[in-house]
Amino acid sequence: MGAAELIESRCEELLEANRSDVSRARSLGASETQIDRLRLSEARVTQMAGALRVVAGLDDPVGRVVDGGVRPNGLRVERVRVPLGVVGVIYENRPNVTSDAAGLCIKAGNATMLRGSSSSLGSNKVVVSCFCDALSKSGLPPDGVLLVEQVDHDSALEFMRLQGVLDCLIPRGGPSLLASVRENATVPTVLDGDGNCHIYVDRAADLQTATDIVVNAKTQRPSVCNAAESLLVHRDVAREFLPVLTAAMEDVELLGDEATRAIVAAGEATSEDYATEFLSLKLSVAVVEDLDGAVEHIARYGSGHSEAIVTRDLRAADEFVRRVDAAAVVVNASTRFVDGGELGLGAEIGISTQKLHARGPMGLEALTSVKFVIRGDGHVR
Amino acid sequence: MGAAELIESRCEELLEANRSDVSRARSLGASETQIDRLRLSEARVTQMAGALRVVAGLDDPVGRVVDGGVRPNGLRVERVRVPLGVVGVIYENRPNVTSDAAGLCIKAGNATMLRGSSSSLGSNKVVVSCFCDALSKSGLPPDGVLLVEQVDHDSALEFMRLQGVLDCLIPRGGPSLLASVRENATVPTVLDGDGNCHIYVDRAADLQTATDIVVNAKTQRPSVCNAAESLLVHRDVAREFLPVLTAAMEDVELLGDEATRAIVAAGEATSEDYATEFLSLKLSVAVVEDLDGAVEHIARYGSGHSEAIVTRDLRAADEFVRRVDAAAVVVNASTRFVDGGELGLGAEIGISTQKLHARGPMGLEALTSVKFVIRGDGHVR
Repeated sequence: MGAAELIESRCEELLEANRSDVSRARSLGASETQIDRLRLSEARVTQMAGALRVVAGLDDPVGRVVDGGVRPNGLRVERVRVPLGVVGVIYENRPNVTSDAAGLCIKAGNATMLRGSSSSLGSNKVVVSCFCDALSKSGLPPDGVLLVEQVDHDSALEFMRLQGVLDCLIPRGGPSLLASVRENATVPTVLDGDGNCHIYVDRAADLQTATDIVVNAKTQRPSVCNAAESLLVHRDVAREFLPVLTAAMEDVELLGDEATRAIVAAGEATSEDYATEFLSLKLSVAVVEDLDGAVEHIARYGSGHSEAIVTRDLRAADEFVRRVDAAAVVVNASTRFVDGGELGLGAEIGISTQKLHARGPMGLEALTSVKFVIRGDGHVR
Repeated sequence: MGAAELIESRCEELLEANRSDVSRARSLGASETQIDRLRLSEARVTQMAGALRVVAGLDDPVGRVVDGGVRPNGLRVERVRVPLGVVGVIYENRPNVTSDAAGLCIKAGNATMLRGSSSSLGSNKVVVSCFCDALSKSGLPPDGVLLVEQVDHDSALEFMRLQGVLDCLIPRGGPSLLASVRENATVPTVLDGDGNCHIYVDRAADLQTATDIVVNAKTQRPSVCNAAESLLVHRDVAREFLPVLTAAMEDVELLGDEATRAIVAAGEATSEDYATEFLSLKLSVAVVEDLDGAVEHIARYGSGHSEAIVTRDLRAADEFVRRVDAAAVVVNASTRFVDGGELGLGAEIGISTQKLHARGPMGLEALTSVKFVIRGDGHVR
């Protein structure tokens, strides 16, 4: 797509800009986690370019006929996928979001306005300039990818209220960004929300499978939204399962209810703990009476992201799938699979936890709309 | 569905409540148009019940598999339609919206909270009580249809901000209601917007067809959103077409640009006129240079609802379809067909002019979301 090659060929310039961003962030007191998210390396730049090549190779969603037919009066009706128009993305300090978002938006036929954080402004400028050059070279308007360079608080609010300019706003960031978008945005939004993901180990679970899944979902990459944060165990298997599990993941700190603490060493879990997305090697644990208890716990504390059951009982699996209200419901697999790449979308611009427009991992299709095309032969009512 | 029969059997009680609503509205100085929208008759009640029977007979969208497949690692992935959850509807004074909205929401598996206007409160109470009884008789929770009985301004604002309660808010009403929702809502919304609909009569139009379509689109029911409000005529056919057209719809008042006024009697059209949804027997007219001129005029003044072209030229038709950005693009047919019933959706809860979630007439599918269901056999990453 051109932009991938340009980013690679301008790698040194990008790393130079990024080093300035990092040293400025450090002097302003950024935490090591923030610095790690901000910092680029040659390997990360290669990854950015690789991700763009994956997107470039995906099927173009625009023009796809969603459904259609002929009405009894002979009118021909189709719904056709069209670009959204101008997609705004407001995000925090990972510079790779700049290239990922721009690539996906352009591939789906949209223009995009990117509003990154002040800390990554220098890096973002270089990335966006690669896109503008690539657009020009392809004979497209170079302002198809625009970076908002004014990055104070007021400009963020203004950005969320660009009615008539933005057809869609996608925020990617923490709870305070999402809350601000909910409160202030006047343009249509798709929220990429938190993942307080549960795994329910049913009475009929294969306990080795359950151990593998919980260990994977909790520890393989604890900082991401599809990592497990909470474990629910059926009381009939808690005594056998919990000691095996804790032995298999000794690095993980447990916070449990009374029944849990009677079986394994764990801190006391508060309601707040059950509602928390730790994003670290912590796991809240509750022993539940039955599947009803698991479903109720999830309804109370879940964030509607990804919820899993481990069971060999078909009826329990079906009931869990039907009753749990979340973007993704997973049976006998790790919640870590709830990801655009893993589910076959090719790439994702975020994971929606709202129910309108897109739910779950959002790929190219989530960056399109539809248009009714109606063809007649002089039809009147 | 039970509710239809109950509404018919309680017709007299409903008409009695409606008479009180009407006389109260009249004493508060409501206009005749408002009174007409508010007033029920035996025939209208029969229509309400009939509309519910149509909805009851539609295919259930819930549980439909949208797409799915097996990943290379054996993980089975499906996207399945699920209810949205709780749908809020805020609307102005037509009591039939109460039964239409409740019927559609329930059919799609949702609970609904209805916030009608104060003027129709008495009528709405009777309609909602029929639904509650019908739900009870079917063994469903009677509060699946709730009427908000506090109908002051503050309660409307509160309603738009019921985060965690409303999964979706659909406003149905005039521009001031929509503006208030845009400004104040914190819950996800789908806007049912204005229809400033255009008909472009191309150089290659069959002029008899064009006359039939414009007359139908303007005069068959001028008060609705899919009626035509503006006519664009290619300059090569304006001199022949406009006199024939005006002779065919003498009741319609024209507001035209200079080129139009040189051909037929018309008032002078301002930019504001071109941007106005008249909802009456008025039509703004402009003579355009070519298809480009028509597309540009529509981009400037259109509201993204329904836009039509009349032409025998395939290339012009295709270009218009591709370039015009609207919920519905119509070739050689009246804009009046942009309607849920006419397009085969069975019934509609509104016509979305936004691009997210639903665009154009919204039927049952627009009242659902999707859920990823992922089935593995102990899969971990």
